[in-house]
Parts: sequence; C-alpha cells; structure tokens
Amino acid sequence: MASEALGTEQGPPSKKAKTETLSFPADDAIKLENHLPPIGYKVEYSSPKRGYGKPFVTLTFATSLDSALSLAPGVRTVLSGPESKAMTHYLRSRHAAICVGVGTAIADDPGLNCRLGSSPLPGPVHQPRPIVIDPQARWAFTEDANVLQLSRSGQGLAPFILISCSLSMDDPELAARRTLLERHGGKYIPIESTAEDGSGPGGRFTWDAILEAVSKEGLQTIMIEGGGQIINSLLSSPDNKELIDSVMVTIAPTWLGQGGVVVSPPRTTGVDGKPFTPIRLTETLWHPLGEDVVLCGKIQR
Amino acid sequence: MASEALGTEQGPPSKKAKTETLSFPADDAIKLENHLPPIGYKVEYSSPKRGYGKPFVTLTFATSLDSALSLAPGVRTVLSGPESKAMTHYLRSRHAAICVGVGTAIADDPGLNCRLGSSPLPGPVHQPRPIVIDPQARWAFTEDANVLQLSRSGQGLAPFILISCSLSMDDPELAARRTLLERHGGKYIPIESTAEDGSGPGGRFTWDAILEAVSKEGLQTIMIEGGGQIINSLLSSPDNKELIDSVMVTIAPTWLGQGGVVVSPPRTTGVDGKPFTPIRLTETLWHPLGEDVVLCGKIQR
Ligand SMILES: NC(=O)c1ccc[n+]([C@@H]2O[C@H](COP(=O)([O-])OP(=O)(O)OC[C@H]3O[C@@H](n4cnc5c(N)ncnc54)[C@H](OP(=O)(O)O)[C@@H]3O)[C@@H](O)[C@H]2O)c1
Ligand SMILES: NC(=O)c1ccc[n+]([C@@H]2O[C@H](COP(=O)([O-])OP(=O)(O)OC[C@H]3O[C@@H](n4cnc5c(N)ncnc54)[C@H](OP(=O)(O)O)[C@@H]3O)[C@@H](O)[C@H]2O)c1
Repeated sequence: MASEALGTEQGPPSKKAKTETLSFPADDAIKLENHLPPIGYKVEYSSPKRGYGKPFVTLTFATSLDSALSLAPGVRTVLSGPESKAMTHYLRSRHAAICVGVGTAIADDPGLNCRLGSSPLPGPVHQPRPIVIDPQARWAFTEDANVLQLSRSGQGLAPFILISCSLSMDDPELAARRTLLERHGGKYIPIESTAEDGSGPGGRFTWDAILEAVSKEGLQTIMIEGGGQIINSLLSSPDNKELIDSVMVTIAPTWLGQGGVVVSPPRTTGVDGKPFTPIRLTETLWHPLGEDVVLCGKIQR
Repeated sequence: MASEALGTEQGPPSKKAKTETLSFPADDAIKLENHLPPIGYKVEYSSPKRGYGKPFVTLTFATSLDSALSLAPGVRTVLSGPESKAMTHYLRSRHAAICVGVGTAIADDPGLNCRLGSSPLPGPVHQPRPIVIDPQARWAFTEDANVLQLSRSGQGLAPFILISCSLSMDDPELAARRTLLERHGGKYIPIESTAEDGSGPGGRFTWDAILEAVSKEGLQTIMIEGGGQIINSLLSSPDNKELIDSVMVTIAPTWLGQGGVVVSPPRTTGVDGKPFTPIRLTETLWHPLGEDVVLCGKIQR
C-alpha cells in the first residue's frame, strides 16, 4: 500500500517487485478479531433491500493526525511504522479482495499482495484479489507493474479492474492491456456508471454497483484501502453507512501539513435527502501498535 | 480580590455561567503524569539562546479523525466524550495559564476555568489564568462574558489579553473594556507585533514574544488549547518545535467532514531557512478515554 514507514520517495517506482517478508504477532491478531470478517465468512442473501449479496466490507487505511494519506498524490509517504504495516498485510490475508482507486494504482504502483511470511492464526497465508476502481481505464500498466510481477511469481493475484460499461474495448491499447491482464488471471469488469449526481451517463460508480460486481466474482469479503477520493466517495453519503461492516484506521503521530491527500468526506446530502451528519464510530477499540494506534469500530447508524 | 470589588454590580447577569462539576479518576491522572509539568515546576533560566525563562508549554486540544476542532468557527461542536472533557479540566488544574486565540474567545464565550469538583491527586483544585491572544483587541466582551462571570463568583480567573503594542488605548471603547477587565483582576498586556513575515510592523506575535509575556507574569506553565489558527501558527515553524514541551491531543472517533476548523500546519519554512518537515511525536502514549483516545507525546527534534 501507499505508506511504508516516515519519509518520502519520489521519482519513478522501482522495476523490482517488493519481496520483503513481514510478520504480525498472534497476540495483536487476536485483539483485532472482533473487527474482522469471521474466518469462513459467507455472504447473507437475506437483505430484501438489495438485489445482491453484499460482501463484508472493511474500510482501512493509514493517516497522519491531520488525516492525510500522503504528502501529495504520487509522493510515497512513509507514515505508519513497521508494526502497522505488518497489520495491514495481516488484514489483507483476512479478506478475499482488496480495493484501491486508479489514483493509487498510478501513483504508487502498489503490490496489493500479502507479504506475511506466515499467518499469525492457524492456516495458510491467503492472497487477496486486487480490485482497482478505474472507470476510464486510465491505468496504463505494463508487465513491469508490481502487481503483475507478483502474480507471475506466485506471490499475489492479478487485479480485477472495474471500468465503465460505456468504454469501448475496440481501442487497440486497451485491448492489448486486456490481453496482458487476462494472461495473468486478471480482467476488466465493465459496470454501470452514471454522472456524479446519478442523473445520467458519466464516470461514477455507486458503491452498490461496485460491491455487486465484487460479489458476482464470488468474493465474500473486501477491504477498501484508499486513496483519498475512494474513501471520501464511500463516506460521502449517509446511504453508504450500512455498506461498511468494520472500520480500522491506523493513525501515525505526525502532522503532514496542508496540501496532502486528505480523508474528510464532503458534507453532501444522501439520495434520500438526509443532510450530512458527521460519521461516528461506536464499539471502538484503540489498539496501540508501535508508535501508531489502530482505531477499530463500527459506523453508528 | 476582583470578585469582592464587584459587590456594587447592578442587576443579575443576563446569562448564567457554566457551573457543572466534573470529576477525573486518579488512575487516569497517574497515567498522564509523565506528560505534564511536574508539580511545583519552576522555569529554568539556563537557555543561553533565549533572553527569558520559557514556561513549560503543553499543546492540547480535541479533534475529529479529520483533524477538525469544530464544524465551523462559532459552531459549538461536541466532539469528545465526558471522560475527555474531564481530562481537559484536569489539565487546566495542572497549568498556571491556559491560552486561546481571539477566534475562540469570540466564537465560544468560553469559561476557561477548571470545573473539577476535587483534584484526583492530593492538593486543592487550581484555577488557571486565561491568556487570550488578541492583537487587534477584537474581543468585545461585556460583564456577561462567561470568563468574567466565573471570576466574579470565584470559580475562575479573569483573562490577561495579549494585544499589539501599536494599539492606542485612547479609543473610548477599549478604555472601557480595560476598566472592566481590571476590575476583575484581568488586564491588557501590549506586546511587540510584526508583519506575518516578520519584516515590519503588523498584527503577528512571535511565540517567543507570547511566552516571554506569560513568563513576565510569573506564570511557569501554560497549556495552549486552540483554536485552529493558534495551533497552526505554533506548528507552522520548525523554530517553534523547541518551545513545546508536551503534546496531548484528544481524538474523537468521528469525521466532521470538509469545511471545519482544521489543525494542519502550513508547509512553511523556518526563520533559519529550514524547509518544512512533517512534525512527528515520539515517546507516545495512546490512552483510551471513553470512546476517545488521548495521544501524549513529545515533538521529535
Ligand atoms: N495511507 C494509506 O493508507 C493509503 C492507501 C491508499 C492510497 N494512499 C495514497 O492516496 C493517494 C491517491 O489517492 P487519490 O485520492 O489521488 O486517488 P484514489 O482515491 O486512489 O483514486 C481516485 C480515482 O478513483 C476513481 N473513483 C473514485 N471514486 C469513484 C467512484 N465512486 N466511481 C468511479 N470512480 C471513482 C476516480 O477515477 P477517474 O478520475 O478516472 O474518474 C478517481 O480519480 C496516493 O498518494 C496514495 O499513496 C494512501
Ligand atoms: N476542539 C478544541 O479543542 C478547541 C479548542 C479551542 C477552540 N476550538 C474551536 O476553534 C474555533 C476557533 O478557531 P479559529 O482558528 O477561528 O480561532 P483562534 O485560533 O482561536 O484565534 C485566531 C485569531 O488569533 C489571532 N492569532 C493567531 N495566531 C496569532 C499570532 N501568531 N500572532 C497574533 N495573533 C494571532 C488572530 O487574531 P487577528 O485575526 O485579530 O489577528 C487570529 O484571527 C472555534 O470554533 C472553537 O470552538 C476548539
């Protein structure tokens, strides 16, 4: 993911995929258990409101005290410490899928795999399926992309990229990328998209459309990692509250200063006209990890 | 005493000052002890760099997850829970002075006193001296101001208001306010002010000038509570790092959304030309209090 320890790296991402091995203590893992999808979690199809089985959704990311994910888009920012980083990889091993936006994919060339040497709980280390939200298929990856390198070496899975169903696959560059992706076991998944306000065609997905696509792939649990626009989009509407089952935010004791990529939802109104009320977490656990803290909780309805 | 001198006051105040009584557990107080000025703290005059004895400075405030102090200036925002509020009042009892900006004074009509019923540690409850940073003397308080009501009833002290030395006291309104203030045991303290960039006359105080004025009043410890501009001003320059002895930030598990009064320092350069580097805390303690957490630490040099 974006944050790897405090300092910044700039310039082109390295051409070598990350191969470090991390370890997360069982003691810490046990304390977080109540905030994770139960092992073997199966989607419930009982909700009459939704026409699909919603996966278990964990919203998780690392911020500074001033709620920044990074100093600027594309500036790799070492935010949280090694313990929190290991936790992120543990969370990845506990979810079927891991979701980021195209901004993160382009800026960070992320690995989106789990780099734990072994699982802190009984069982093997599981690799999550990367889901990239990229309505305009802007991510011009090559075979050197970290995520593809890792999939070739069996250390991760190739991404499923959600694109707007209005995109034409006739474009030769896009067709070539599709071939590359499919060779690795990944794919483009076209889904319905609308204008920002939902009124007509455009480049926005609803979160129900995103989760329905994930569900159709048989992925029953997903963690949403970032970046800023993705998280703010998810937190922007009161209607999305019930989509999120668990929130796990790592906070590093630093202020990155004005101008960063910030998590702070816009104060918009829900589809049902309900005005924005601040989102609050309940059943909170503040779990210190190294110099950082992990805040776990549920969104208050 | 100011409150006795007011025996001739005519009519009841139109508003009633806050009179609730809070309590903070000794267990929690003991855990925070390392992050507070030692009881009986005396300023050290040993720093050759400074021409004055710098008070012990604790920076303390409560924010949301998106680093907001309030929904908007003047919108009273209940952020943290009752436990954190009691802690703030405990901190007030452990400092000789409590500092806020004029923005907070105008927006909140704050009491700036300690409302603990009894001290969690042996000894009486101490009332801090309010210090208000108000270069242009914009705060048009009347005798109904909470802080003055509380000083009349012996539940707090009247403020010392730091104003620019370039202000003229000939202004009749200002002179009347001065009389009112002095009747309560408060006063205006004119201090040197410069332009934002320090180049010439203007409405900005340096933090050394502020702390020197506090020190001259015999106040050996001060907590700086807010609001946003005050904190960002303090955190804006790397040169201010060594002024801050302790940081205690309460974080409430809520996102207030875009548009709040936010703590996030500008990425400016120090007087010595050092570029902004993110401010980081070390020796951190994350102490959960109710649904909130209190982050205690020191600024890394
Ligand atoms: N600290 C952490 O935990 C963490 C985690 C992840 C990322 N990051 C950082 O975050 C930064 C990137 O954040 P970012 O805000 O620039 O990018 P981002 O959130 O990763 O991606 C933003 C893009 O996603 C698409 N998108 C977002 N919401 C959508 C919706 N509802 N429907 C359809 N498309 C949607 C849009 O693509 P179009 O513009 O093409 O429409 C948008 O430009 C990087 O610096 C990265 O390092 C940090
Ligand atoms: N959650 C909390 O813990 C907490 C604590 C305190 C306040 N608050 C909230 O914060 C909000 C107010 O914040 P705010 O940013 O509007 O106001 P503020 O920080 O309280 O006061 C800002 C004013 O202080 C003066 N000032 C600041 N830095 C200065 C410097 N270096 N030298 C000289 N003067 C300086 C300026 O006055 P001039 O413009 O006259 O030059 C400036 O306008 C309120 O909503 C309040 O409720 C929250």
